[in-house]
Amino acid sequence: MRIGFIGLGVMGRPMAQHLIVAGHQLYLYRVKPRSAHLVESGATACTSASEVARSAEVIILMLPDTPDVEHVLFGEDGVLEGVEPGKLIIDMSSISPLATKDFAARLDARGCEYLDAPVSGGEVGAKAASLTIMVGGKPEVFGRAKPLFEKMGKNITLIGGVGDGQVAKVANQIVVALNIQAVSEALRFAARAGADPAVVRQALMGGFAASRVLEVHGERMISESFEPGFRIRLHHKDLSLALDSAQLLELMLPNTAMVHQLMNGALSKGLGDKDHSALIEAL
Amino acid sequence: MRIGFIGLGVMGRPMAQHLIVAGHQLYLYRVKPRSAHLVESGATACTSASEVARSAEVIILMLPDTPDVEHVLFGEDGVLEGVEPGKLIIDMSSISPLATKDFAARLDARGCEYLDAPVSGGEVGAKAASLTIMVGGKPEVFGRAKPLFEKMGKNITLIGGVGDGQVAKVANQIVVALNIQAVSEALRFAARAGADPAVVRQALMGGFAASRVLEVHGERMISESFEPGFRIRLHHKDLSLALDSAQLLELMLPNTAMVHQLMNGALSKGLGDKDHSALIEAL
Repeated sequence: MRIGFIGLGVMGRPMAQHLIVAGHQLYLYRVKPRSAHLVESGATACTSASEVARSAEVIILMLPDTPDVEHVLFGEDGVLEGVEPGKLIIDMSSISPLATKDFAARLDARGCEYLDAPVSGGEVGAKAASLTIMVGGKPEVFGRAKPLFEKMGKNITLIGGVGDGQVAKVANQIVVALNIQAVSEALRFAARAGADPAVVRQALMGGFAASRVLEVHGERMISESFEPGFRIRLHHKDLSLALDSAQLLELMLPNTAMVHQLMNGALSKGLGDKDHSALIEAL
Repeated sequence: MRIGFIGLGVMGRPMAQHLIVAGHQLYLYRVKPRSAHLVESGATACTSASEVARSAEVIILMLPDTPDVEHVLFGEDGVLEGVEPGKLIIDMSSISPLATKDFAARLDARGCEYLDAPVSGGEVGAKAASLTIMVGGKPEVFGRAKPLFEKMGKNITLIGGVGDGQVAKVANQIVVALNIQAVSEALRFAARAGADPAVVRQALMGGFAASRVLEVHGERMISESFEPGFRIRLHHKDLSLALDSAQLLELMLPNTAMVHQLMNGALSKGLGDKDHSALIEAL
């Protein structure tokens, strides 16, 4: 299949690589030296997003934030200028659920299909093709894209209509951030009260406090191993998405707001490029 | 073995029953009609805590809060009046870690041994003898009590010295409360943004957001099944212990403090006797 791929960062590069290895013809935009190996593997470097959209049947985006996606889709020489009816745009970036519905509507008006398909699992999951992929869109469109998702991830769920993939991703980031804060407060409490946090963590893993965060990030906190992993800076962005949406929805998210504040503190302490488990250092 | 058991509430009754079934001679204080079956099973009803302490080698307490334990140990006709050197007091209540060190020291002065051994797992765990038991005390004293713990629980850990069992229990309650809040905020967000929270929960179970709380309490929130389980009122007490200790330790626990406030709100809405997963109703 002819697949466009725009956004060749830490996540995008291995994801694109998996599609090439699976035998697809890839069309890339913004090929930098660190992604030159993809062209050497047979992918085609394009000079604009519109050229990618003209060349490919399916165009995948993996970009940092909402304005980046908007610019690539609707800016000068963007995807919209190159697409024809029937083409499929898959946005795998983590961006605003509300903006997603708007983007999908504008592409629908051009006769194009749209899926939002943000991922969880980080660089490790991208390299291992074991990403969790949360998809929003029409079931038949999901069916068309599923074989591609299966080359990049393992736990692939159609959550609901357009935007619902992003909603699930935001929900995921809320839970992970607040669980990190939960483990941070508990382990700090244990240590300050004179107990061994490593033993406490082990005991807690056997009961209702058990979580992937206690297991993985709790271990990082105890050994103070804060190399990313997933950076505080990116998680901070994801909570900004949550709080922006919550404001529009008139929804109260008190602990999400508190963790966002604590992340502000972590960023101001220069911890932005540490793993998000380093949030414990903000206490 | 001759075992005293004081505190025959929802948790204490099945715990005492397991010890009777295991062949121990139990001495009980404050036998009410709902615990009369224990006497019918062969246990002895005593008229005071001091009589229990005179009759038994090991005295187990399972009481609601710190002042209850203090009263039973050191009040009129209390345990202290009945004990002799070499006897072992095991406090399985969930109380203040700092008060625990004081209680242990006062009993140590009388030549008695002391273990704090709070539990997690609730009424279900107590009935199934599958409680998680977090123990503080000397290793040789833990060894003496372990066969008794094994009749009541499954995941039994010596955390450290006296008080460290209570520290681990508080840490456990912090994690569980904050994980409940995490799932509450995420599922409310998902629903308000138009996605199906049941599908979102299922998708999140596959990644870093996975936790026992997402699994068990997330399911309760979706089906709005708030019969306890573990009551908000009791969890509220446990967070009070956390915050009282944090104040003495000069430790900042921002999300624990926020959830304590939200539980205040839940109590004022009459939700105190609902399962702690009903915390989502405070949003």
